[in-house]
Amino acid sequence: MSARESIQNESLNVSLIIIGDEILSGKTLDKNASWLSQFLFKEGLVLKSMRFIKDQVLDIEKALSDSLHESDIVITSGGVGPTIDDKTKSTLAHYFSKKIIERSDVVSVITQNYSRFNRTWTPETNQYHLFPEDFFAINNPLGFAPGLGFTTKEGKLLLSAPGVPKEFSEMVTLEFLPIIKKQFSNRIKENHQTIIRTQGVPEEKIFFELCPTLWSELEAFGSVSSLPHTLGIDIVVSYKGGIKTHEEKNKEIKNIITASKLLPYVWQWGNLPINQLVLDLARSKNITFGFAESCTGGLTASKITDLSGSSCAFWGSIVTYDNSVKEQILEVKTETLNKFGAVSIEVACEMAIGARLKLKTDYAISITGIAGPDGGSSDKPVGLVAIGFSSKKNSGAKIYQFIGDRLRLKDRFSDKALLTLYELLKEAQLET
Amino acid sequence: MSARESIQNESLNVSLIIIGDEILSGKTLDKNASWLSQFLFKEGLVLKSMRFIKDQVLDIEKALSDSLHESDIVITSGGVGPTIDDKTKSTLAHYFSKKIIERSDVVSVITQNYSRFNRTWTPETNQYHLFPEDFFAINNPLGFAPGLGFTTKEGKLLLSAPGVPKEFSEMVTLEFLPIIKKQFSNRIKENHQTIIRTQGVPEEKIFFELCPTLWSELEAFGSVSSLPHTLGIDIVVSYKGGIKTHEEKNKEIKNIITASKLLPYVWQWGNLPINQLVLDLARSKNITFGFAESCTGGLTASKITDLSGSSCAFWGSIVTYDNSVKEQILEVKTETLNKFGAVSIEVACEMAIGARLKLKTDYAISITGIAGPDGGSSDKPVGLVAIGFSSKKNSGAKIYQFIGDRLRLKDRFSDKALLTLYELLKEAQLET
Repeated sequence: MSARESIQNESLNVSLIIIGDEILSGKTLDKNASWLSQFLFKEGLVLKSMRFIKDQVLDIEKALSDSLHESDIVITSGGVGPTIDDKTKSTLAHYFSKKIIERSDVVSVITQNYSRFNRTWTPETNQYHLFPEDFFAINNPLGFAPGLGFTTKEGKLLLSAPGVPKEFSEMVTLEFLPIIKKQFSNRIKENHQTIIRTQGVPEEKIFFELCPTLWSELEAFGSVSSLPHTLGIDIVVSYKGGIKTHEEKNKEIKNIITASKLLPYVWQWGNLPINQLVLDLARSKNITFGFAESCTGGLTASKITDLSGSSCAFWGSIVTYDNSVKEQILEVKTETLNKFGAVSIEVACEMAIGARLKLKTDYAISITGIAGPDGGSSDKPVGLVAIGFSSKKNSGAKIYQFIGDRLRLKDRFSDKALLTLYELLKEAQLET
Repeated sequence: MSARESIQNESLNVSLIIIGDEILSGKTLDKNASWLSQFLFKEGLVLKSMRFIKDQVLDIEKALSDSLHESDIVITSGGVGPTIDDKTKSTLAHYFSKKIIERSDVVSVITQNYSRFNRTWTPETNQYHLFPEDFFAINNPLGFAPGLGFTTKEGKLLLSAPGVPKEFSEMVTLEFLPIIKKQFSNRIKENHQTIIRTQGVPEEKIFFELCPTLWSELEAFGSVSSLPHTLGIDIVVSYKGGIKTHEEKNKEIKNIITASKLLPYVWQWGNLPINQLVLDLARSKNITFGFAESCTGGLTASKITDLSGSSCAFWGSIVTYDNSVKEQILEVKTETLNKFGAVSIEVACEMAIGARLKLKTDYAISITGIAGPDGGSSDKPVGLVAIGFSSKKNSGAKIYQFIGDRLRLKDRFSDKALLTLYELLKEAQLET
């Protein structure tokens, strides 16, 4: 949505250049661009532009010239390794008319990078010690090739990191950011956001029916975005400090929402992923849980086990893709399957009970639906899902309808299952 | 690796411009760039550059000017919708000095887009019918906003699509590609690749120890890349036709590899994902399978169930995150767990047998390992995984060591499990 230029012009601009043939030809998926965009925002910097170019001297020079023109800081990714196609170092040197020379100070950075992995570096290993004069070498916390830094005579800052995602993000976080903060401390203004996450209500209904004046009310605080997510619409208000502090703005925004018809649909004030919310709450309440998954095929469990420490609360999931497994392991009754079909309140309910008893957890959630593209009918279309729950106290299930392709539906079904569990956990008594 | 300029200069260059504040601020993850890079390569086109810019007139004009300078075709993504921040249409018109006028021919495209969703469009709905003169409107197969097309007087082609990933990819595939093929048919030369996928051998060992001359031998055919993947190193040779046909080149490359010391490490000549290979083979041999997952936490099952039709061969997975579940559902013996630990050949073997018997499948694969970051020891470090298998004929397990963070290890462990199953399925007798 409409960027507020008055706010942005105060900010420190960054341009990113991603260098690498393999990305443009689709062989390698770039991860650095999306990571950096989120990282810079969080740190109060503005990503002005990103360019993806080939490992070719002219392309690098052109991108560099354009980026330095429009931004205070230029970060490059890729092309600093030892092989023949790694042209970044020589091109940067040439661009700023710097000679490449043997640098004993750079050798110590390289030696440090190698010793971290119990390896030794010698000038025969590669030519990392040949380095442009007046550039500074940057420590590589997770790899061997040093990063490059240079301050232009106009006071602009150039920082070059390797393209390997782990090395890039670690070097930017641990090395580039302190350099940027040191050089531009007075120009970094924190970005703040108030995030209102809703579910179960379409975007049009929010802004045209329930709260027709909401958008303009929120725009008084900063720039507003409405972003679709697996569970529903996230409304994001972004702003910097000013006459009002960000805490004041955040509070006022919350008051507006709380007084609006949107409130019943809000499930989170913030941006924690649903798997983290579930795990944190279950651990804090000392509750164990598990799943019975049909159409999500293990994805719900996989989302929970993406989190370190999940073994404290998550005990397992029974993925029952074939109906025979629903019967044999979860003890869903054959007549329930025959009478109501696999995608039904009744089967979801029996699945949840079966999972809780077999896994011996406090709670269990079941998911049975139609992820498509085949298997739908006019009666039970693709996107239909039954989500069941079971605890010692009670069990039940509900039916929902989502839209999307197969992978999107698996994603939405599993997030809805996690949200169901989250709501149950919120109500659960603290157990000791 | 080093791009072959002689080959690339023959090709038709495309530049992509992604327009949208929400992507640069990290709120929305762009999917169009990576999709388009793979799509264009497959269609014999060369993606020369990509630019990510804000919804701001000057930025769009600058990107347009640079892109038209370096490429024959410029594709833009985003900013063609009805809201105030959608500046692409007016900026393009202004850039080419075209007036925006009411266009009755555009109305018919819009009406068609709306009628596809059983909705009617009127000039009150939005201003889609106000369109730059001399531009052509492009059908939107999955949305409402029409795309824009324009041929410059130098014969360059500009094509603008909405940024919504589904709308973008569908419009590029069904509408842009035919336009490009019509306008530039004589300049499109198919790209070909020979892909050699290896596992169990590090990159350095391949190119320095086993096959020191391989890289230069392969470079005689085209450009060579060495790309790390979850299972190992993929070697990709990219080339276009020429004196030799691509079938001849492909055959010669295969002969070189077959005669080399690399052969025992090759697990695929091609680029099918391992989940697809497993499912296709199991279905063709009429074999059912399932998993017992500990550290992968459902990811292995989720990868299989990402594929439509997986229910024909995949019956389920028992995710036993807690040891009690390994005992209760898979009937792993308490003494085996106590004596050897959860990550061991012995437990993996009992898990696989338990899964096969409980799921009643022909084959079962088990995965038990340490995904970290906690839980490792000097004896059993993070990255260690035991993968077990069981069929009617025999059962067993092997131990492997991988490196990576938690998510990377889950990914690598599960792909290794799928590869284990694939190797077993290859040996399996065809059952009827």
